[in-house]
Amino acid sequence: MFKAPEHQVAGHLVSDGKLGPLVDDSGHFYKPLQGDGRGSKELAFFETFSSDTRVPDHIRRFFPVFYGSQLLEASNGSGLCLHLVLQDIVSGRINPSILDVKIGSRTWYPGATDDYIKKCLEKDGRTTTVSLGFRISGLQLYEGKESGFWKPGRKEVQSFTVDDVRSVLRRFVSSNSSIGNEKPDCSFAPSIYGGSTGILEQLLELKAWFEDQTIYHFHSCSLLILFDKESVLKGSTPAAQVKLIDFAHVLEGKGVIDHNFLGGLCSLIKFISDVLSDSNESSITANVESEKPHVCTCNGN
Amino acid sequence: MFKAPEHQVAGHLVSDGKLGPLVDDSGHFYKPLQGDGRGSKELAFFETFSSDTRVPDHIRRFFPVFYGSQLLEASNGSGLCLHLVLQDIVSGRINPSILDVKIGSRTWYPGATDDYIKKCLEKDGRTTTVSLGFRISGLQLYEGKESGFWKPGRKEVQSFTVDDVRSVLRRFVSSNSSIGNEKPDCSFAPSIYGGSTGILEQLLELKAWFEDQTIYHFHSCSLLILFDKESVLKGSTPAAQVKLIDFAHVLEGKGVIDHNFLGGLCSLIKFISDVLSDSNESSITANVESEKPHVCTCNGN
Repeated sequence: MFKAPEHQVAGHLVSDGKLGPLVDDSGHFYKPLQGDGRGSKELAFFETFSSDTRVPDHIRRFFPVFYGSQLLEASNGSGLCLHLVLQDIVSGRINPSILDVKIGSRTWYPGATDDYIKKCLEKDGRTTTVSLGFRISGLQLYEGKESGFWKPGRKEVQSFTVDDVRSVLRRFVSSNSSIGNEKPDCSFAPSIYGGSTGILEQLLELKAWFEDQTIYHFHSCSLLILFDKESVLKGSTPAAQVKLIDFAHVLEGKGVIDHNFLGGLCSLIKFISDVLSDSNESSITANVESEKPHVCTCNGN
Repeated sequence: MFKAPEHQVAGHLVSDGKLGPLVDDSGHFYKPLQGDGRGSKELAFFETFSSDTRVPDHIRRFFPVFYGSQLLEASNGSGLCLHLVLQDIVSGRINPSILDVKIGSRTWYPGATDDYIKKCLEKDGRTTTVSLGFRISGLQLYEGKESGFWKPGRKEVQSFTVDDVRSVLRRFVSSNSSIGNEKPDCSFAPSIYGGSTGILEQLLELKAWFEDQTIYHFHSCSLLILFDKESVLKGSTPAAQVKLIDFAHVLEGKGVIDHNFLGGLCSLIKFISDVLSDSNESSITANVESEKPHVCTCNGN
């Protein structure tokens, strides 16, 4: 009944022999409580958040549904272990493409130990966290029946430069991503990033909330951006979704906005807008060029 | 002809015997080039920026006008020294109230020495820079003919807590700021922070630019917020102004937005909006209360 999630792109993997998450067939995601206190802090967050009437419904939909906690046999066979029971975000998606983007120009939180802060500062500087205000911490990209998924290893993802991030955000919505050195065509950009229900609009909705909310500070949280090409081709909605995950380091906002999250979110929004406007421009160019022969024929008559 | 500025609230002061800025009677501000390379970097910024056609005019007005550089006798008598010649922002203002707000949740810049970064990190954590995404680095507040200016010392300003910042932003637009423990009345909030040409609208205009511009990253820059009560009482415009100052650590944006500045700016905007909405609410309450006796009289008849 319980199995390792097929589409996990970051975090502890069951396959590493570590304590990892499990899923069932009914759309539940079981996340084991880590022993270092992070698990119980995440449980406490969900318990507070799920009954917090200050969070509007249109924002709540960006969070996985919380079903409580449950004792389960741990994935690594180490005995019974308490798990968070959450909505399995990718449940029902066939071959989903997924980006895990850790938001913020710093991932440490006030009150952490000096050692923890030092470790975070070092990693934040080494990745794009400091320069971009976010870093990609995992991804999988479905390229098609033949080539399957592009799912770079953890080390490769952690070494992404600013240009790599720019390129991944293009490849993510391209139909020719599997073809070696070809320039990503961004052909899915208008339907995935664009449109009234697309990724950009969802991110802008989140941004508007973050400009105002002073309830929570989401340290070291990720945005999961996902879609499946089948839904896009069929035209089913929502083709693309944004979800927040990983709440072990959420602290009270105490009347201050989460400027660290907001700054990083704005940076990601700008990157995605750039892909979208580039793809709009190139489709305009393509249209102009495809009209040329037509004009010529008319002149020829 | 040259004299020490009357209304400087932060930075090196001539009165410390240090090399400080000078002003003249024609609205010019002379800023000596510091020997540690910061001065020449700031000069280079102004030379690039002043001819940068990518900066729209409605944004350029947030920057002091740059008139070039000039050799002048240094304020501390140490001989001839190159000075930036800038617009004197407070020229023509009588008894201006001024806030110097250093924007960003980090003040260090990529490429700085380890020692410099360490010093910044320490100060950023000790002040409200990390928690708020900005810190007040100087202020003067004109209280009236009798009490003159409230201009707390550097040490006092550097020890401002989050609550102090909240309180200063209220006192800044209050008519009873000089009266000991009385709650700031925020009576100038609607005319200084609010309105179509007020501080909030100006900050929102800057914010819109920062959401899009990827040309410059403004590390360790300040926003100067200033007004004079005389202009407010007379109804002359602009009663209040926002200006960016201190450009020694501006770096190229390289296609990335300045998420550090933007996050801090959004945080300041939220604080100022809060003052404004509180003052609107209290004026509604005041109106309701002042109507009460009137209603009673009617009922009594």
